[in-house]
Amino acid sequence: MTRILVVNGPNLNLLGTRRPDVYGTQTLDDVISVAREAAGRHGIEIRDVQSNSEGALVDAIHEAREDCDAIIINAGAYSHTSIAIRDALEAVELPFVEVHISNVYAREEFRHHSYLSASASCVIAGAGLKGYAFAVDHLAEAL
Amino acid sequence: MTRILVVNGPNLNLLGTRRPDVYGTQTLDDVISVAREAAGRHGIEIRDVQSNSEGALVDAIHEAREDCDAIIINAGAYSHTSIAIRDALEAVELPFVEVHISNVYAREEFRHHSYLSASASCVIAGAGLKGYAFAVDHLAEAL
Amino acid sequence: MTRILVVNGPNLNLLGTRRPDVYGTQTLDDVISVAREAAGRHGIEIRDVQSNSEGALVDAIHEAREDCDAIIINAGAYSHTSIAIRDALEAVELPFVEVHISNVYAREEFRHHSYLSASASCVIAGAGLKGYAFAVDHLAEAL
Amino acid sequence: MTRILVVNGPNLNLLGTRRPDVYGTQTLDDVISVAREAAGRHGIEIRDVQSNSEGALVDAIHEAREDCDAIIINAGAYSHTSIAIRDALEAVELPFVEVHISNVYAREEFRHHSYLSASASCVIAGAGLKGYAFAVDHLAEAL
Amino acid sequence: MTRILVVNGPNLNLLGTRRPDVYGTQTLDDVISVAREAAGRHGIEIRDVQSNSEGALVDAIHEAREDCDAIIINAGAYSHTSIAIRDALEAVELPFVEVHISNVYAREEFRHHSYLSASASCVIAGAGLKGYAFAVDHLAEAL
Amino acid sequence: MTRILVVNGPNLNLLGTRRPDVYGTQTLDDVISVAREAAGRHGIEIRDVQSNSEGALVDAIHEAREDCDAIIINAGAYSHTSIAIRDALEAVELPFVEVHISNVYAREEFRHHSYLSASASCVIAGAGLKGYAFAVDHLAEAL
Amino acid sequence: MTRILVVNGPNLNLLGTRRPDVYGTQTLDDVISVAREAAGRHGIEIRDVQSNSEGALVDAIHEAREDCDAIIINAGAYSHTSIAIRDALEAVELPFVEVHISNVYAREEFRHHSYLSASASCVIAGAGLKGYAFAVDHLAEAL
Amino acid sequence: MTRILVVNGPNLNLLGTRRPDVYGTQTLDDVISVAREAAGRHGIEIRDVQSNSEGALVDAIHEAREDCDAIIINAGAYSHTSIAIRDALEAVELPFVEVHISNVYAREEFRHHSYLSASASCVIAGAGLKGYAFAVDHLAEAL
Amino acid sequence: MTRILVVNGPNLNLLGTRRPDVYGTQTLDDVISVAREAAGRHGIEIRDVQSNSEGALVDAIHEAREDCDAIIINAGAYSHTSIAIRDALEAVELPFVEVHISNVYAREEFRHHSYLSASASCVIAGAGLKGYAFAVDHLAEAL
Amino acid sequence: MTRILVVNGPNLNLLGTRRPDVYGTQTLDDVISVAREAAGRHGIEIRDVQSNSEGALVDAIHEAREDCDAIIINAGAYSHTSIAIRDALEAVELPFVEVHISNVYAREEFRHHSYLSASASCVIAGAGLKGYAFAVDHLAEAL
Amino acid sequence: MTRILVVNGPNLNLLGTRRPDVYGTQTLDDVISVAREAAGRHGIEIRDVQSNSEGALVDAIHEAREDCDAIIINAGAYSHTSIAIRDALEAVELPFVEVHISNVYAREEFRHHSYLSASASCVIAGAGLKGYAFAVDHLAEAL
Amino acid sequence: MTRILVVNGPNLNLLGTRRPDVYGTQTLDDVISVAREAAGRHGIEIRDVQSNSEGALVDAIHEAREDCDAIIINAGAYSHTSIAIRDALEAVELPFVEVHISNVYAREEFRHHSYLSASASCVIAGAGLKGYAFAVDHLAEAL
Repeated sequence: MTRILVVNGPNLNLLGTRRPDVYGTQTLDDVISVAREAAGRHGIEIRDVQSNSEGALVDAIHEAREDCDAIIINAGAYSHTSIAIRDALEAVELPFVEVHISNVYAREEFRHHSYLSASASCVIAGAGLKGYAFAVDHLAEAL
Repeated sequence: MTRILVVNGPNLNLLGTRRPDVYGTQTLDDVISVAREAAGRHGIEIRDVQSNSEGALVDAIHEAREDCDAIIINAGAYSHTSIAIRDALEAVELPFVEVHISNVYAREEFRHHSYLSASASCVIAGAGLKGYAFAVDHLAEAL
Repeated sequence: MTRILVVNGPNLNLLGTRRPDVYGTQTLDDVISVAREAAGRHGIEIRDVQSNSEGALVDAIHEAREDCDAIIINAGAYSHTSIAIRDALEAVELPFVEVHISNVYAREEFRHHSYLSASASCVIAGAGLKGYAFAVDHLAEAL
Repeated sequence: MTRILVVNGPNLNLLGTRRPDVYGTQTLDDVISVAREAAGRHGIEIRDVQSNSEGALVDAIHEAREDCDAIIINAGAYSHTSIAIRDALEAVELPFVEVHISNVYAREEFRHHSYLSASASCVIAGAGLKGYAFAVDHLAEAL
Repeated sequence: MTRILVVNGPNLNLLGTRRPDVYGTQTLDDVISVAREAAGRHGIEIRDVQSNSEGALVDAIHEAREDCDAIIINAGAYSHTSIAIRDALEAVELPFVEVHISNVYAREEFRHHSYLSASASCVIAGAGLKGYAFAVDHLAEAL
Repeated sequence: MTRILVVNGPNLNLLGTRRPDVYGTQTLDDVISVAREAAGRHGIEIRDVQSNSEGALVDAIHEAREDCDAIIINAGAYSHTSIAIRDALEAVELPFVEVHISNVYAREEFRHHSYLSASASCVIAGAGLKGYAFAVDHLAEAL
Repeated sequence: MTRILVVNGPNLNLLGTRRPDVYGTQTLDDVISVAREAAGRHGIEIRDVQSNSEGALVDAIHEAREDCDAIIINAGAYSHTSIAIRDALEAVELPFVEVHISNVYAREEFRHHSYLSASASCVIAGAGLKGYAFAVDHLAEAL
Repeated sequence: MTRILVVNGPNLNLLGTRRPDVYGTQTLDDVISVAREAAGRHGIEIRDVQSNSEGALVDAIHEAREDCDAIIINAGAYSHTSIAIRDALEAVELPFVEVHISNVYAREEFRHHSYLSASASCVIAGAGLKGYAFAVDHLAEAL
Repeated sequence: MTRILVVNGPNLNLLGTRRPDVYGTQTLDDVISVAREAAGRHGIEIRDVQSNSEGALVDAIHEAREDCDAIIINAGAYSHTSIAIRDALEAVELPFVEVHISNVYAREEFRHHSYLSASASCVIAGAGLKGYAFAVDHLAEAL
Repeated sequence: MTRILVVNGPNLNLLGTRRPDVYGTQTLDDVISVAREAAGRHGIEIRDVQSNSEGALVDAIHEAREDCDAIIINAGAYSHTSIAIRDALEAVELPFVEVHISNVYAREEFRHHSYLSASASCVIAGAGLKGYAFAVDHLAEAL
Repeated sequence: MTRILVVNGPNLNLLGTRRPDVYGTQTLDDVISVAREAAGRHGIEIRDVQSNSEGALVDAIHEAREDCDAIIINAGAYSHTSIAIRDALEAVELPFVEVHISNVYAREEFRHHSYLSASASCVIAGAGLKGYAFAVDHLAEAL
Repeated sequence: MTRILVVNGPNLNLLGTRRPDVYGTQTLDDVISVAREAAGRHGIEIRDVQSNSEGALVDAIHEAREDCDAIIINAGAYSHTSIAIRDALEAVELPFVEVHISNVYAREEFRHHSYLSASASCVIAGAGLKGYAFAVDHLAEAL
């Protein structure tokens, strides 16, 4: 069975409880539900991981090599600072989609550049939780 | 009835005939079909325009004020150079989604910045023609 | 009879209907009235043109060589991106005044530089519609 | 009675005696006459000050709080280097117009940026002494 | 009872044992004693955490939401590279003070910018361990 | 029969009438004559187009796909600002030569970079009208 | 007896009367009272000076050599532009603390760099008037 | 007995399994064997650690203070982003060699700068696994 | 008799033997033949020099003052780094053409700027050996 | 009789008492003696002024128009920040020499650029007090 | 027999006599001995050249094409300024190692970038003379 | 006997014959006469060298170690591009003065920075040939 790993980075565990003006009121569980629902329509399984640690995210991406076929990643703040996560994504050679819940290009200058984008198959920013569903649909087609 | 204007910018009329390694083999007609099919599912009407002229794109966006509710725009090369189109989009005060067929962040440095992104509701790059469908879905929910 | 061409660039056709917090509620017709009234006091005739197209603005400037003595230009967003309009203004060798209705120096960084300013006789920003009258007065004296 | 403070900065005391190719042959007295004449038409009083000292200019601006309603300032070289004058203008919370006799945007690169512009109501450069009259007219309308 | 979380970042566990010319000879325990003593004067409780891991610091900040009223943070090297910690501090919406034992502005260029400063209530650098006491005093007043 | 499209951009219609110190006194007709004469020696046909509109230049380049074998382009000011024209030239996949009548590298800084050069087969600047003849000779050999 | 000179720079004479949202409602007299009260606890005398003139501030710092043991300086806008004040502080070779009432790192980009910080013993920003008291405490310990 | 800690950073656990065109087919075990073999010739013991976590690498470096005499570090992606690891290396005051298996100067621009290099005794890039042996030899001589 | 000096810089002695994908298979002798043939048509004599030494190129340019009327120079890598050669060319006050066999603007960023271009009469890049013939033709007309 | 004004800027009144490692032990009086002695040899009179105030220096330069023939200026820190002094020097149209006692190019980056240098007749840095004598000799010859 | 050319650039002839704190006391002869000893272990012959002239270094590299199999180069200061040497190394298409005796990354900013590194097989900096031996070992394995 | 080496760099052999508006009409022989005359007054011997080759200049500086006590260098264009000459000057550890005949700070931007200045004892620019005499006087005093 096809399987997609959904990776959520730092501070996304607070989703729904922090700055609702920027991120809305839905929680990380809602994120996973949205992804799972979309995946269900394609007969795809979702595995998910969230961590505030850059190293733990690298580890999780490495493990995806074993039994996942693609990755959806919202690396949060690490998108803008982590070459290690970029290298991990390139190393496992799985297609991946970069998702941001808010439109990062409308926020501070330092959120306009992501180390991940150049290696991503597709980048979606500002579509809210729905962005995860789009990512699933995109990967379902590509796989 | 809800109506979305789909705006395609310079060189997109050549879609499917140019650089298939970057843009694939589907044509601009296919783009509009994809958008229309997605819109149909939401009972939304699609109007479309393509032009290689920055001024004509500004004009088209202005006209959308009259009878459209949202805009999907792939401004092609003008994304990176046109403040006039950004101003037009802000002026008409319609929600809009910025779409790029290819992943612009994986191409030349000068394609990494778009004047439109900061005002967009959502940005989708690299999802191929499917990006237009995602944009329709996103706007359908927002409207 | 002395004649001044008043050139208005992209999105200025929407004046009075868009972002009144920035541009006020007066329309492009009001702009021309203000200029014409000022010109009347000096026995000067006003011709005016507005276009959203960079090329059409270049064309209009070229035509001014035939029967105009000076130019007042609010090139809007093209002020910041168009070397072609700068070249056109230099080519026709008519004195010109650069006008901005709002104070562009108080807005986004990318509006602080204008390709036109270095060749202008005078630059007026933030004086509202009155800026056009000042421009007429300035040119009336210079001519 | 409405009163406007006209502030002239460093080296403007030499006006009319220095570099006539750039600044013309009229003197600082002529500047004040031009402002006064324009003010007279609106029943406005002009008070003026010139100093080569940044601190004295800050002092003068502070004093304007007591009995002036607006400020016209040509801060000369300090426009490009003085955050203290900017802060003073913001502190007194009076509307002000920034005037430059010559077109600073056509001169050395370091004269293209002014710390004052972002807080000004209006910026006029290159209109010669007439720029002070335009500034008076602008403020007369705004007050 | 009011409670302040004191967060110390990477390498601060070595305090007193490393580079005494820069950081002095007092240890991390001394830091906490200084903070606790100051807090005692205000009837405030101190909780403290030190970690060399960016993710663990994010976690600790998250937990402070539960039962702390303010944060004092010396994020060490992460001050200059971590957007994740900045986001965590903004997410928990607690007032916080940024402390550096040494004067970071007198050291390498890359230590002059901190991602945390813009969101901090107050920044203290170079006051040695006493900086923690000042931070407590500042927060005691603000709370 | 082999055919070359000669594209001239903004303000080149004024050639011979504007700034003779920079561009000389010969007209656009002379440019085409020079190109045609050189082409005649190789049995090549010349088609030509001039426009002040970026969009019209993109359109003309697109049309060249149908029945031209190469392009000679002097995009004037658009050389320095138009990614759309670069994309059009890449899209039609015809060899092209970039010509500038004056030596752009000896003029303002902003004329030193051309978006077209990286995709050109050959770049000729400062050779006057003769540059078009060299371009024809170069393409004649290459075709 | 130990004596500290408290130097306040441009616009600080308006404290409490200008922009209370940024600087609060307390006046310069209150600043000195806060410093004096803290100094009293350590048996230290406070001398104070305020000027809007860069030169006068340099003079005051020079005079401190005669009979002061340390300096507390809030150079206001001159912090960001004055190398002369930095040189004066280095010349008199007295330990000094740099104080800013508001958090300058949370304001405009040009307020993030201070020429004084690299030579300061300690930098305190955003602690309000209390910052002067912390500065006194810090110097009391150091002296 | 002399002991060297060999530190390998993020993604190096995948060595030999990822991007063999860049890193070859040898594994992390081979790396350690190469180092150990070289160390054996000098009667030096090798201890090794690999982690994808920046904090864990800082911890490991701290521990080396206890019983190691030198460090060989390939910090992978963290070389380019981690000031914390640089600080840790400076804090423990052990001589260290920076090793990169591939020639980082021939890769993306962001891999050309390493925060570690300025404090290293020696930097070796592009020598493959052999680089670790060179590092051992270099340290053997220095110790 | 009119005489042109053809100057070839570093590594051009290897022409035809190195990187044929970039420079083709023709040799430096072929370059001179092409120039000589073109010169013969105009009754112009060619003198040539090649050196890998910046100083020797400066010397050769100096000598051209004695008995040459113009210079054609392909300074190779020195184009991008040598102010000395630029000064030499300006000093001898002979018209000169800058030639590059390949299109330098399509190669590494550091080859996009040439110190020579601003003083050249004409710049030709990417026309292969034919560029030397164009240069001769251009100079023949100018002389 | 020929007269030269020697202008010394901020902190130079402390000469000989501050940082002898950088500026030596000679005082401002010694500076004037050195200049006067050199001037005496040429029958030139020296007038001198020192101020820590930018405005006072501008005033002094203005006054030199009346009865001085040239200026020697060591503007100290204002060299790097004052456009007002540059403007004053240009305004009075007297030849001037810029002197720095220490070699400013060997100190902090921000001391490498002087606003005055571009308008100076000659710049001398690092020659100690002797630099003033050299300046006198240079002007004696030029006058 | 396999042969390696060891190229030493400007000022390396002074080795052992200049700045022993940076480069140690061993001479250029010692460098060659170290390389020769290492080469002897692999049955490789060493040829060496040292020159202070960029052009002579280019010549020497060219000659290596005839009878050398690899190059070890310490281009000294030319590493940071010479594109000509880079081009020569690329032209001869021999594998080469870049060696620096001192750790250039710990010195002035302008020594951190080398034009040679991107084309090198391996870069070794800071290993002293031993760096040449490592380079030989590396090439012995690669050849 | 004390001996000073006067080093003149590229294009200075043309002095007096090239660009008299910038460099005057005196020749290199005149330069040496001026230096020799000044040296004679101090009983100092002058040795001189001029070369257009960077390497030859490095060689000449090296030789000065044997029998010279100081160096006066006008490295011409190499001042702005040669780290090798800087290294040579540092290596021989002789005091040196940097001389430029014209005021380099009033010329093109790329002539404002010199690699030599930071190591020079003194820098003199714009004093014409007299600058060499000043340099001799300066060194005579220092030796």
